[in-house]
Amino acid sequence: MDACEYLKPEVFTNVPGPRSKTLIKQLNEVQDSRRVIVFTDMEKSRGCYLVDADGNVLLDLFGQIASLPLGYNHPTLLEALKSPEFPSYFVQRPALAIFPPIQWYKVLKEALLSVAPKGLSEVFTFCSCGSVANENAFKAAFIWKASIIKGRNTPTEEELNSAIGNRQPGAPEMAILSFEKALHGRTLGALSTTHSKGIHKVDIPAFAWPIAPFPNLLFPLDKHRIQNEYEEEYCLQKIEYILQTSAITIAGVIVEPILSEGGDLIATPSFYCKLRQLAEFYQIAFIVDEVQTGCGSTGTFWAHEQWQLENPPDIVTFGKKMQVSGFYTKMEFRPPQPSRISNTWMGDPLRLLLCEKIIKEIESRQLLERVSNVGAFISLGLEQLSESYPETISNVRGLGTFLAFDSSTESIRDIILTKARNKGLLLGECGIKTVRLRPPLILQLREAKVFLELLSQVLKTISSNSD
Amino acid sequence: MDACEYLKPEVFTNVPGPRSKTLIKQLNEVQDSRRVIVFTDMEKSRGCYLVDADGNVLLDLFGQIASLPLGYNHPTLLEALKSPEFPSYFVQRPALAIFPPIQWYKVLKEALLSVAPKGLSEVFTFCSCGSVANENAFKAAFIWKASIIKGRNTPTEEELNSAIGNRQPGAPEMAILSFEKALHGRTLGALSTTHSKGIHKVDIPAFAWPIAPFPNLLFPLDKHRIQNEYEEEYCLQKIEYILQTSAITIAGVIVEPILSEGGDLIATPSFYCKLRQLAEFYQIAFIVDEVQTGCGSTGTFWAHEQWQLENPPDIVTFGKKMQVSGFYTKMEFRPPQPSRISNTWMGDPLRLLLCEKIIKEIESRQLLERVSNVGAFISLGLEQLSESYPETISNVRGLGTFLAFDSSTESIRDIILTKARNKGLLLGECGIKTVRLRPPLILQLREAKVFLELLSQVLKTISSNSD
Repeated sequence: MDACEYLKPEVFTNVPGPRSKTLIKQLNEVQDSRRVIVFTDMEKSRGCYLVDADGNVLLDLFGQIASLPLGYNHPTLLEALKSPEFPSYFVQRPALAIFPPIQWYKVLKEALLSVAPKGLSEVFTFCSCGSVANENAFKAAFIWKASIIKGRNTPTEEELNSAIGNRQPGAPEMAILSFEKALHGRTLGALSTTHSKGIHKVDIPAFAWPIAPFPNLLFPLDKHRIQNEYEEEYCLQKIEYILQTSAITIAGVIVEPILSEGGDLIATPSFYCKLRQLAEFYQIAFIVDEVQTGCGSTGTFWAHEQWQLENPPDIVTFGKKMQVSGFYTKMEFRPPQPSRISNTWMGDPLRLLLCEKIIKEIESRQLLERVSNVGAFISLGLEQLSESYPETISNVRGLGTFLAFDSSTESIRDIILTKARNKGLLLGECGIKTVRLRPPLILQLREAKVFLELLSQVLKTISSNSD
Repeated sequence: MDACEYLKPEVFTNVPGPRSKTLIKQLNEVQDSRRVIVFTDMEKSRGCYLVDADGNVLLDLFGQIASLPLGYNHPTLLEALKSPEFPSYFVQRPALAIFPPIQWYKVLKEALLSVAPKGLSEVFTFCSCGSVANENAFKAAFIWKASIIKGRNTPTEEELNSAIGNRQPGAPEMAILSFEKALHGRTLGALSTTHSKGIHKVDIPAFAWPIAPFPNLLFPLDKHRIQNEYEEEYCLQKIEYILQTSAITIAGVIVEPILSEGGDLIATPSFYCKLRQLAEFYQIAFIVDEVQTGCGSTGTFWAHEQWQLENPPDIVTFGKKMQVSGFYTKMEFRPPQPSRISNTWMGDPLRLLLCEKIIKEIESRQLLERVSNVGAFISLGLEQLSESYPETISNVRGLGTFLAFDSSTESIRDIILTKARNKGLLLGECGIKTVRLRPPLILQLREAKVFLELLSQVLKTISSNSD
C-alpha cells in the first residue's frame, strides 16, 4: 500500500492561491521569498500529492527538488518514529567522530553500507548538504593526490606552517576538473566546479580550475548515433588535452551521471567508461556526484551502475533522497592522519534511521523495477507528445523516472510550467528551456497517466494559442 | 527540574573501556575511528552526564563539541516530539526556498527571530553545518561589496558569462579577512579563513586571502591591563595596515568572539568595538561567527552583546547548539536577485522545532543567569587551582561557562585530559596546550563542584608525580 489518499489533482484557485500569496508577502519581511511557488501543508500532503496552503492538491513531480524518495507521509517512514533510539537521536546530536552512539556501526551497515556502490567499502557522512559532501570529496582527492606526487604521507613542518597561512607549498595549487553546465554545490569550493547559471556565481571569487565540455547529445539516441559518437569523442579529446596540458595539477574529475541543473544533459555509458579510463591513466580521482541521481530514480540504486565500469569510481557522493549526505570511497582515500576530513557532527543518526527505512522500502517493494516501468511508460508518452507537438516538446531523455524534455524557448517552457501548475501539476525546470521530472519512487502508472493527460491538455492550449 | 538522574560520575573501567574499544575497532573497518574517545549510550545519558558503552557515567563538560545546549534527553525537548507538525517534518524535508511549510514564518518568528541580534531583522537558514553558514555569509558580503564597488545591482552579460567559467570580471578577486588561529569551517572557502591547525589545511588549495594577528592577552586581564592594551593596539594597527594596503579587495572581516579551536583566545570589548569601527570606515562587512559562542554559554545569548557595539554587526552566523545553522543580517545584505544564495533545503523545520524549545527553556528557566553564576563559580575555582598548581594551570579565561585554561605543555594537557576522563570527566582541548569547557547551559553548582574536586585530584597526582 502506498500512502496515497488522493487520486488526482484538485485545484480550487490559481497556483499560488490567495493564502500562499499572503504567506509569501509575510515571509518576505524576514527572508527572501521571491522564489516561493506555494506554501505546503506538510501534514495533509500524501503520496505523490502536495497539498498547498489554499487546499489545492498538486501532483508533485518535482519532489522537493528531487529530495523526496517515497512521497509525502509514507506509512513506513512514519514507523521510524517508533524506533527505540528515535527520541534520543532527535533531542541531541552526537559529535560522531568522537562520541558516536553505540548503534553507529550497525546503523551504517544497515543503511548506507547495504547499498554501497561496488568496490567502495568506506563511508564518510555529513549533515545533509550535497555541497559539503562534494567539498569533502575534493579534500580526499587532494590529500590522496598530494601523497602520490610527494611519495610520502606525512606533511613536513614547512608544509603545515605554510598551509596555516594559505601559502604554498602547504596550500598547493591543485584543481578539480569539472564540466560545463555541471552543478556540484554552492559553497566556494563546490561552486568552482559549478557552471550551470551565471547568477549563481557572479561576484563570488572562484578557484581558476579547468572546465571541460560535456557532450550535448541529440535524442532519441539511436536516431542520432553517429553524430552523438562524434560529439562524445570530441569532448573526450578535449578532456585528455586538458589533462595533458593543464598548468595546474589536477587531483580529480567530478561528474554527474545526468547534469541536472544544467539542463538534464546525459551521455552514454561508453563516454563515462572512457572518462573513467582517462582518470585512471592520468592518476586523478574519479568522483561521481550522485547527490541528485542516487537513491533509485534512474531505475538502479546508483545511476553509475548502468555504465558497467570495469574499475569502480574512486568516490561516489550522495545527499538529497538519502536524507544524509556523504561519500563512499576506497580505503586508499582515507586520509593518512585523522581529523583531516572532519567537522562537528559528521552526520546525523536521526536521518540515518530514515535512510535505513527508505532503503528497505525500496528493496521490499521492488521500487527500482517500478521506477523502470513507470519511467518507460512516461518516456513513451512524452515521445508521443513530442510527435504531436514537435514545436513545443523535443529531446525527450533520461533514465527511469529521472526524465526531461526541452521546449522551444525559455518563455514557452515557463508558460508550460505555469499552465501545468494551474492544472495541478508541479514540474521542475533546468537549463534554459528544459522541463525536468523528479517524482518520488512510489509514482504509479495511474499518476503517470494523469500527468500525461494534463500535460497534453497544456500543450494543446499552447499549440492552439500559437496557431 | 533538570533531567538529571545521575548525581556524580561513576567509572567502572578505563575510559575508553573494553566495549568502546571493540566498537572502535569494528567501526574502523568502514569509517575512520581513530579520534573516537568513547561510544555513547544515547538513551541512558541524562542531563550533564554521558553514559558510555561500558556503562561509565561521565560528567560531560565538552558537550559534543559545544553543540549540546540543554544536556542529554532533556524533558522539555522531548516534548517537541509531541508537536503536531513533528511527524510530517521528520518524514520529508521541504525545499524551503520554493515550497516552505505553512508554519514556516511562524516557526522563524518564534524560534530564530525571537533571539535575533539587535539590528538584524533578516535570517538565512541552512541545514546544520557552521561551515555552510559562514560560506554563505561570505557570499552575502561579496555580493554586497561588489554592488558598492560597481555602483549597480545588476550583473552584465560579460560578468555572468565569465563567472560561469571561473574567470574575471564575473568571478572577482575578492577576499575575506580572517584572524590567525581562527576556525570558521572546513569547506574550501571557510577553510581559507581557518588557521588553527596545519593538519586541517595541508594539501588543500586555499584562497590567498589576508590574515591578521589576533591579540594574545594575558590573564587575569586586570593584572596585565597595560600590556594587553598594547597588544590589542598593535593588532588593530596591523589590521588597518592590511585594509589600507591589500592588493586584493577585502569584502568582509570574520571573527569569533572567542577563538575556540585556536586556543580560546579572547580580546576585550574595546578591541571588538574598534574592529567594528574599522570595518565600517573601510566599508567591509563585519561578520561575527557565533557558531560556537552563540546560544547562551557566555552568559548572554550572543557573546557579541557584551561588546556593546554602537553599530551592530552586519552578519552574525550561528550553528551547533542552535541545531540549525544560518546567519542573521540586515536587509541591505539580501542579494538583489533571488537564488544567488540558495541550496536544496535551505534549513530544516524539524530542527527549528527543537531550536524553539531550546530558546524558550533558556528564557523560562533563566539559564543565562545560571550560566553567569555557575561560570563565575568555576572561574574562581580554577583561579584557586591555578594558585595552587601554577606550573600546571594558568591563564584561566572565558565568559559564562565558556571557560578555558592553559597547562604547561601539550603533553601535560593531554595527561590532564586522560586522567580526568578516567575519573569520569569529559573535557575538551584546543590550541596547543589549552583545556576548554563547553558544558550544557543546565550545568549546576553541584556539578561544578564535582568538576573542581576531580580536577583538583588530577592536578595533585600530576604535581606529586613531577616532584
